[in-house]
Amino acid sequence: MNIQQQAQKAEQLRKLHHASHILTLPNAWDVASARVVEELGFPAIATTSAAIATSLGYPDGQRISRDEMLGMVARIAKAVRVPVTADMEAGYGTTLEDMAETAKAVVAAGAVGMNLEDVTGRDESSQVDTALQGEKIRTIRKASASLGVPLVVNARTDIYLMPIGPAESRFERTVERLCAYREAGADCLFAPGVRDADTIAKLVKAVGAPLNILVTTGSPSIKELEKMGVARASTGSGAARATLGLLRRIGKELMETGTYTSLLDGAIPFAELNKMLERQDC
Amino acid sequence: MNIQQQAQKAEQLRKLHHASHILTLPNAWDVASARVVEELGFPAIATTSAAIATSLGYPDGQRISRDEMLGMVARIAKAVRVPVTADMEAGYGTTLEDMAETAKAVVAAGAVGMNLEDVTGRDESSQVDTALQGEKIRTIRKASASLGVPLVVNARTDIYLMPIGPAESRFERTVERLCAYREAGADCLFAPGVRDADTIAKLVKAVGAPLNILVTTGSPSIKELEKMGVARASTGSGAARATLGLLRRIGKELMETGTYTSLLDGAIPFAELNKMLERQDC
Repeated sequence: MNIQQQAQKAEQLRKLHHASHILTLPNAWDVASARVVEELGFPAIATTSAAIATSLGYPDGQRISRDEMLGMVARIAKAVRVPVTADMEAGYGTTLEDMAETAKAVVAAGAVGMNLEDVTGRDESSQVDTALQGEKIRTIRKASASLGVPLVVNARTDIYLMPIGPAESRFERTVERLCAYREAGADCLFAPGVRDADTIAKLVKAVGAPLNILVTTGSPSIKELEKMGVARASTGSGAARATLGLLRRIGKELMETGTYTSLLDGAIPFAELNKMLERQDC
Repeated sequence: MNIQQQAQKAEQLRKLHHASHILTLPNAWDVASARVVEELGFPAIATTSAAIATSLGYPDGQRISRDEMLGMVARIAKAVRVPVTADMEAGYGTTLEDMAETAKAVVAAGAVGMNLEDVTGRDESSQVDTALQGEKIRTIRKASASLGVPLVVNARTDIYLMPIGPAESRFERTVERLCAYREAGADCLFAPGVRDADTIAKLVKAVGAPLNILVTTGSPSIKELEKMGVARASTGSGAARATLGLLRRIGKELMETGTYTSLLDGAIPFAELNKMLERQDC
């Protein structure tokens, strides 16, 4: 893939946020999971930083290094034909220089979009000042554009997810931040932790740009989200955690009854999986 | 983990092949899967080369490099407390020198056992001469012992799995090879592709050493295998392929009905998975 092709993929991903259909992204964590998602016909691959981290031996929260995270992103980008967007947590650094380096490394890994969170640590005290977060987003856009691939930036606020600050001002603070991120050049605004249908509908109207919702227990269905005008729905580490739940059931069944129902029912056959990985023309 | 501790783990794994209970190993392919298996109480972690390869972007069959394979093995060995045995395909090389290097690299990765296949390519013409395969096993034992960690060698013949040669001599050729591997110092003998209960029972008696059976469609249950005297039962890439099958169902459900039943039912909660990866005292 040369830079022109990569720039085209970035535009392709950007447009998917303005289509008549919602962009649904079951986040991938390795090459096999990405190929399964691509084979189903999803038009892009979004990675989940939490599940890449746990797959490689780290808890969530920037304990993995940027290079290790992007090592897996690069493997995925090499293996799929659709655009890849990388979950880069809080950008693996604190300064604008760090953000420029991260953006360039994301482009070098073959991805065309990235998620950027506004919390750098484990508690709300680490939430980045709104103006600085805006500067980080501008820096990412500029640094990636200088390489010829303006990254599709999905700017996230963790106000609802963590949660941060008093409940009564949560909505207003979320809107304020997401609008600032939009003004800084973010292509999509991400508010994980918002599950309530009314709040989502209000948020869509308030932010004036494509909105990403994390789907989890209690979330409206994809069709309902689409009707509300949500542009993008993603599963975060959910799909990876579901598969690990199945592994646990497989192990329990082996231990308790010594049978293979959960191991065998619905498994992808060996030859079929191998064939998915054989493709060499990406 | 120092060399003495690693040598103790090798002995621990060796003993598990001579216990009153069958050693059941749902093979792992990354750190998260290994930690889930360990948390269930399985006494060792065996890796699956096929699923590590597909996770990292390669089809099965030594297309991945030895270093990349062992990179994942090392991550797993660092994260779990139980002994780890690595599926090393045909040893990533053809010469005895290659085998010595591979054995030392397995020890350096923190594993205490390894699987060695007797086919180096995609068809039966690549089956290694029996005497040479025996020399390879001796070399692995010697090279690893020279580092203080005599690896637990699980020597595999692909006669049934591929299959190789005429059906009527399959059993005799399997016994001949496995006995030669036993004489060369293998701790366990592996005959994937053997599923029929009568054949398994005959094989247990004929090989005179711990026997490993790959469990798949049509295999006798773990309890039946234990009764027959099988020492070790493993799932190969089966558990990984089952989880990818679930990912496919999750994706289909998102696309077709836009709902989250397969995504959410039985998933390991985020905090619980994170906690599994937090452990720092291995």
